[in-house]
Amino acid sequence: MKRVLVLGIDGYIGYTLALHLLKNGYEVAGLDNYSRRRWVKKLGGDSLTPIATPRARDQYLRSFENFIDQTSCINLKDYFLISRILDSYRPDTIVHLAEQPSAPYSMLSANACIETQQENTIGTLALLWAIREKCPDAHLIKIGSMGEYGTPNCPIPEGIIPEKCLGTPSLSCPMSGLLFPRQPGSFYHLSKVHDTYNIDFACRTWGIRATDIQQGVVFGCNASSNETELTRFDYDECFGTVINRFCVQALIGTPLTIYGKGTHVRSILPLKDSIQCLNLAIDYPAEPGEYRNLNQYGEYYDINTMATMVMDAAANYDIEPDYQHLESPRTEALRHIYEPINSNLINLGYKPTDDMIGAITELIGNIRPYVTRVIPHTIAPKTQWR
Amino acid sequence: MKRVLVLGIDGYIGYTLALHLLKNGYEVAGLDNYSRRRWVKKLGGDSLTPIATPRARDQYLRSFENFIDQTSCINLKDYFLISRILDSYRPDTIVHLAEQPSAPYSMLSANACIETQQENTIGTLALLWAIREKCPDAHLIKIGSMGEYGTPNCPIPEGIIPEKCLGTPSLSCPMSGLLFPRQPGSFYHLSKVHDTYNIDFACRTWGIRATDIQQGVVFGCNASSNETELTRFDYDECFGTVINRFCVQALIGTPLTIYGKGTHVRSILPLKDSIQCLNLAIDYPAEPGEYRNLNQYGEYYDINTMATMVMDAAANYDIEPDYQHLESPRTEALRHIYEPINSNLINLGYKPTDDMIGAITELIGNIRPYVTRVIPHTIAPKTQWR
Repeated sequence: MKRVLVLGIDGYIGYTLALHLLKNGYEVAGLDNYSRRRWVKKLGGDSLTPIATPRARDQYLRSFENFIDQTSCINLKDYFLISRILDSYRPDTIVHLAEQPSAPYSMLSANACIETQQENTIGTLALLWAIREKCPDAHLIKIGSMGEYGTPNCPIPEGIIPEKCLGTPSLSCPMSGLLFPRQPGSFYHLSKVHDTYNIDFACRTWGIRATDIQQGVVFGCNASSNETELTRFDYDECFGTVINRFCVQALIGTPLTIYGKGTHVRSILPLKDSIQCLNLAIDYPAEPGEYRNLNQYGEYYDINTMATMVMDAAANYDIEPDYQHLESPRTEALRHIYEPINSNLINLGYKPTDDMIGAITELIGNIRPYVTRVIPHTIAPKTQWR
Repeated sequence: MKRVLVLGIDGYIGYTLALHLLKNGYEVAGLDNYSRRRWVKKLGGDSLTPIATPRARDQYLRSFENFIDQTSCINLKDYFLISRILDSYRPDTIVHLAEQPSAPYSMLSANACIETQQENTIGTLALLWAIREKCPDAHLIKIGSMGEYGTPNCPIPEGIIPEKCLGTPSLSCPMSGLLFPRQPGSFYHLSKVHDTYNIDFACRTWGIRATDIQQGVVFGCNASSNETELTRFDYDECFGTVINRFCVQALIGTPLTIYGKGTHVRSILPLKDSIQCLNLAIDYPAEPGEYRNLNQYGEYYDINTMATMVMDAAANYDIEPDYQHLESPRTEALRHIYEPINSNLINLGYKPTDDMIGAITELIGNIRPYVTRVIPHTIAPKTQWR
């Protein structure tokens, strides 16, 4: 069975993925420096779910026979250390989730922005050199973001400009084969674009195999009779994504806050779909030298529609939330074309959930027991893009 | 008169530019941490020209009434320090030449690569935040590289995808307005691509005005009766660019070393043309919020032709150098289309030298007095891309 090294094993997706892989017979090793816990705390927030301590999680992971080991790495940027870890674990697959994941955090201040691009871009760069040195045949799966693309005035292909013109498909595009141009909307998204370019070069030059996943906005929370299995769940201004935040606002009886007119469109998928996709990417690796892009999402909606969906889901619990529009702290196009393609994952076998409102309803049910833990003042946006 | 802050004032172009601006009445301030001197020394090399010490240069610069001040900044990445410097100098224009400039150096090792992207990308990022904070109306001129584009299978526009299709100009391109996709050939060139994306975002989001110069390969050396005015001249594997290196090989009677078949094409310009272009960019700044790209070169040739040009120029000194092909340490396309556009600078008034062989002949004459200073073993390529 494949040996998978999960970088960021203490995170929202990382911990969920590690448990999923362990229960399905994969060998799993992990790495985390718990910076996500620190970042959220620093901003006055906390996971809504009462997640286990690193020590308790470690103990639990070690109760699986197929769990190899995990390390509290000081920093992915430490090339020497990450090389030793790859040398020791010899993974077949490396799932890299160990990045600073918040756009607002990256816009907070010069220091938070510099920290973001240092941790993400320079961290991934050190990882690439370590892979080249220690396990050049390992398959790197790196989580990017659909936000790397921004909202261009044309369909969004999967990473690479296709052979046929995106406007007039009967013609060939003279730029085909080059990376599709990115237009990211924050310094966090820029750090992912920098990763994209660095990884593409490592594949072209060193023959590394990589899957770069442009992921939509993930929502959801696992549920388990064993609380040690709970993953973290953030809803604050920086680390809470839109549907997760809306669900918390519904539960505490405050209006769902829509930034700006709410006409901007984003692609979304439930946490369990994200895990399904990552599992597919692990099972069907990129070829040596291949830089493969997967646009990973289920459906896309504008933010107003997402608010309505959360309101519909909340009605199942007799909750009737209101909504309100806030002046947008961000700079984004109000009305735009949005036609992303996700056929690569569909071709690998991805079966997107066919019941988004059901998935949101399940989410509300899963987090409802923890509603007294909400820290309301962390929700309102304070970080301005301009 | 405009006040220009030259970042990297001790460098090859930086020092030449500072002297040119001082002699033409501009107010000049500077910043350098002398890392270029250290990098070259660390690899066993030295400037061919006997450049003055930092102290002697400082004394000389201060002899100009219109020289403001200079700082030996520890690091551009130090946001706090660079903010204080901008606050104190209040420049109208910032010419940013303070990056690690060598592609081979960035491929030497994990550490050299990480250092390159840290110094360049994170340094420029800190600078952008400092500009936003302290002098948001200042015009940032940043030196990128024609190598950011690589060798795509189509004409190379100036930074941005144009309205008309690059293949069928009667059609509109659905991607027009987006950044033209980059395909850089080293981690150094990648650091410049990351800069490109970060600067473009800062212009779009904060309204900063920037000119990003995609510069061809510069060659040449200034000459002066005052040796304190001599700029540095590198010819080693890492910091020597192709024509400068060929000229040194011709002078010491060793064959000009052509990497691979020599059929790959590069754009070039003499040092004095680079100064002319930078002066134009200073005089005609980008508009607030504008991210302007200038492809800065005079002509382009394949490497074999450049070797022949150097041989022709050397003949003026009765030198008859030989040439030899070495296995290429790099990974680059052998035969490719190369159609870069440089009309933005031409429209600003750039008059490229009409006598490239004359410029090379002048170069050989300028460096000839220093031929006994050559350290021959630093010339051969030892850094492998793969």
